[in-house]
Order: sequence, then structure tokens, then C-alpha cells
Amino acid sequence: MGRVTARRRVLRVRDGVQTYRPDTLAAEEPMEIRVGGRPLSVTMRTPGNDFDLAAGFLAGEGVLHAAEEIAGIRYCAGATADGSNTYNVVDVGLAPGVAAPDASLERNFYTTSSCGLCGKAGLDAVRTNARWSVADDPLRIGPERLTALPDRLRAAQKVFDSTGGLHAAGLFTADGELLCLREDVGRHNAVDKVVGHALRAGLLPLRGTALMVSGRASFELVQKAVMAGIPLLAAVSAPSSLAVDLADESGLTLVGFLRGTSMNVYTGAERLQPTPVG
Amino acid sequence: MGRVTARRRVLRVRDGVQTYRPDTLAAEEPMEIRVGGRPLSVTMRTPGNDFDLAAGFLAGEGVLHAAEEIAGIRYCAGATADGSNTYNVVDVGLAPGVAAPDASLERNFYTTSSCGLCGKAGLDAVRTNARWSVADDPLRIGPERLTALPDRLRAAQKVFDSTGGLHAAGLFTADGELLCLREDVGRHNAVDKVVGHALRAGLLPLRGTALMVSGRASFELVQKAVMAGIPLLAAVSAPSSLAVDLADESGLTLVGFLRGTSMNVYTGAERLQPTPVG
Repeated sequence: MGRVTARRRVLRVRDGVQTYRPDTLAAEEPMEIRVGGRPLSVTMRTPGNDFDLAAGFLAGEGVLHAAEEIAGIRYCAGATADGSNTYNVVDVGLAPGVAAPDASLERNFYTTSSCGLCGKAGLDAVRTNARWSVADDPLRIGPERLTALPDRLRAAQKVFDSTGGLHAAGLFTADGELLCLREDVGRHNAVDKVVGHALRAGLLPLRGTALMVSGRASFELVQKAVMAGIPLLAAVSAPSSLAVDLADESGLTLVGFLRGTSMNVYTGAERLQPTPVG
Repeated sequence: MGRVTARRRVLRVRDGVQTYRPDTLAAEEPMEIRVGGRPLSVTMRTPGNDFDLAAGFLAGEGVLHAAEEIAGIRYCAGATADGSNTYNVVDVGLAPGVAAPDASLERNFYTTSSCGLCGKAGLDAVRTNARWSVADDPLRIGPERLTALPDRLRAAQKVFDSTGGLHAAGLFTADGELLCLREDVGRHNAVDKVVGHALRAGLLPLRGTALMVSGRASFELVQKAVMAGIPLLAAVSAPSSLAVDLADESGLTLVGFLRGTSMNVYTGAERLQPTPVG
């Protein structure tokens, strides 16, 4: 996986002193996801764990729920001038009976609701497409377990240390054990890679787990957690309004600003033990 | 613009003490961009400056280059049950003679190149679609001007102060004067809003300016800068490999890790005055 990072020469300026030195960068390349040979989506990602990325993306969209629904995943031969494979096109074959996604999936996701294009349409789409509920998940977790997660995530981030340029997503047990960590230039991709890994290992829905992300908590990250059956999403930074709305409607516990010994719990605070008084 | 932020009740945990209090969140809503009535793209964005967002997005894709190419921009009536407008669908009318974009624009962007789907395809597409070059831009800027930009950007960020949840993009002159600042839950949107504002004001190409962004520098942010004729992009955090490659090929000056009195200059270091020795 030499393509995860790349080396470039950089002019470093420190307190007025300028020096040239080599620098390590996070690699970024486009990847096209196909289903049964039909192009579905292009994402800019850090190469590596590409099959997990494709499977996790399709789980987030409600296409995949179990490993058995995948007939096979492979790199397509790229259409390069010399016929060589760019390893940037991944085709997911579906098992018999699994419905292929609509090619205009992204657009439809927001417009299938009766309310037109608005935040509520996104909430409706998740409710419609989710195969399982996280609302009844029995996960309980102590605040001190949660505040330990950022350090554990950071300690496991190998590429970030060298590039400073990657988002991370880590899946943890209620005891704080790290089950899976993935890094990517795109935070959505990091989550897709975690979910895809779990899906291919037969672990969906991910009941009783907590997902920690290095950046903000957007609507789409909450969506991906819900679709994977993860009952708790914690972020180092702020959530958006629609992320909180979806978490609230789905029964997901949403934690933001998880730093040091502090956090904000936006929804599902009953999962924090000891149960808070409010 | 009351929709820029939203209020929610949050459980705040600080050193073991738990209190409920109101919290201000960055608003997030989907927005569909249409061209001549045809749906083109959906983005999750913070409401506000929506016409700039649509115009800037289309500038980044090579569809728009000047204000005169726009016949008009309006909100479409949403398809809500009661017929009310969601203000989440924006239609851009093109002036006569302006070519409409391909509906599958995103996918084509990466696959029109002869090399198949790879980073080089993205570079080729920018080279093919850019109407002007930033390579010959005469901008020269002192390192001390650059290191002053993050503080100026932060000082002008009104919403971030209340939510902690927004990305920012600021357009500056070579003297460090702020020309335009926009905030959004998506950093691509913040840049699109800046570029769209400038396009609609008749200011493209943005020769002699510097664009500062709050996060990382991805391929797509460099692409947007190049397409707007901006010769320098500075980011608080790291660039990706493909961002550096596109900046190098386009003649754009790319600065990363711009913090305190330090920065890394990845490409186009000749624009830093005094000219560095290497």
C-alpha cells in the first residue's frame, strides 16, 4: 500500500527561516464505484481498503446489509492507453435477488420524500431505507470511557502522524476496545471503510458499538452510522443541526466536542452511565 | 438569515459535572442546483448566499466564467405538500449561447481523459476546462502577510464563534485586505460561495488574490481556485498529493500548515517575497 502516502519537496518557513526538505503527503485519487458493471459514484479517496470502501458506501445507501449479498468485488481493468489497471475502479457484484441501486441514487435520496427537497426528506429516506433500528440498542457507556476514545484513536492513527492530513474513523466496543480504524482524506470514506470492513466480516448490524470520528458530525455521518446499526457516534468537533435531528429521530446517541474530560451530548444521553439527571 | 444557525438542548459534561443547556448549531440543509430547470447536483450546505453557491459551483465546473453568462437565478417552488417554497432548490438560467453542462458532469469530469479514472484525468480535465491561466499571475506576497491571514479569517468568522462548526473561506488581496468571507458546514461550499460572489460581481478571473481556507487543501479546492483564476491557495492544514500535483501543473502557489509564524510552501514558492533561496 505504498500509495497511501506520497513524497514531495516542500519549502518550509519557520520564524522567517526558509529551508527545502522532503515532505510526506496523504495520497488522494479518484475511485469509481460500480454495481454490476454500472457506474454509480465517484469519490476522492486515499487508496487502500478500496473493497471495504465500496461495500461500506453501499451499506450507507441501503443497498447492502450482509456479506452474503455480495457475489464478488474486483478492480476493473482501467481504460488506460496501455491497458494497465489504475486500481481506481471497483465493481461490486450483487448476489442473486439483491436489488441494484438506482443510478441517480444521490439525487433520489433527498427527493423521494413527500416534503420536497428539505432536511426532512433526508430523515424520511433514512427511516425508509434502514433495515434495523438503533433506538432499542442496549449500549450503555461511561463518560470516562468516551473521553478516553480520542487518545486511543490518535494513538492508532499511523498515517496522520506522518502527514497530518487524514481523517480517521474508529469503531469501539462499550469497553473502549478498538475494533477497526481507517484513515482517509475524506471523512465519509473513513467511515465507509470501517462499515464496509464490518459488513464483509458479517458483523452488521453493529449493535453495542461506538463510532468515533476525527472531525465534525454531519448529517451524512449520522446516516452512515444508523444504516450500519451503530447506536453511538462521537466526534471531536461540532455536529450540524440536521445531524442532531437525524440522531434524535433515529435514537442514536450523538456526542460532539469530545475533548479532554469534556463532551456535549446532543441526543440519546440515557446511554451514558451513570444515567444523567436533567 | 435565521436558518444559518439552529438551537438545540444539549447535555454538557465537564470534568464529571453534567448540566443541560441550550446550544447553537450550524444549520445544514440539502440544496439542489439546477441549470435551465434540469437538476445537476445536490449538496449539503448551510443556508445563505445560495445564489453565490450555485454560481460558484458552476464556475468550478467550467460552466460559468462571467456574470453576463447568467440570465437569472431564482429559488424554485418546492414540491412540499402545502406548495410552500423550501428555498432549497436553486435554478440558474444561462444566457443565450452559454453551453449547458452535461447532466452526468461529476462522473465525466474524471473519465473524459484518455488515461481512464486516475488522478491524471482530473488534472487533464482542469487543464481542458480552465478558461484562463494562473501560471503567469504576477502576485507576489510576503511571508509575514500570509501568516497574518489565519487570524484575520478567524476574526471575521461570525458563525464559527457561536457554533464551532463551520468551515471558512476568505479571499484576500496581496496586501492582506479581506475581500470576501463565507462560512459553511462544507468547505467546498464556502469556496463556491466566495467564487460565486466574485463571479456575480464581475471580478473573474481573480488575478492577484489569495484564497485562505480553514481546513485541508484537497484536489477539488485547488481545482476551484484554478478555475476562478486565483493564483494562491493557503490552508490551515495539510494538502493531499493530488492537490499538490494540480497546483504544480497549474502554476498555483499552494501553502499548507499556515499557523503562527510557520507554513509549508508546496508549489509556486517564487511568489513569496523576498524570493526564497533553494
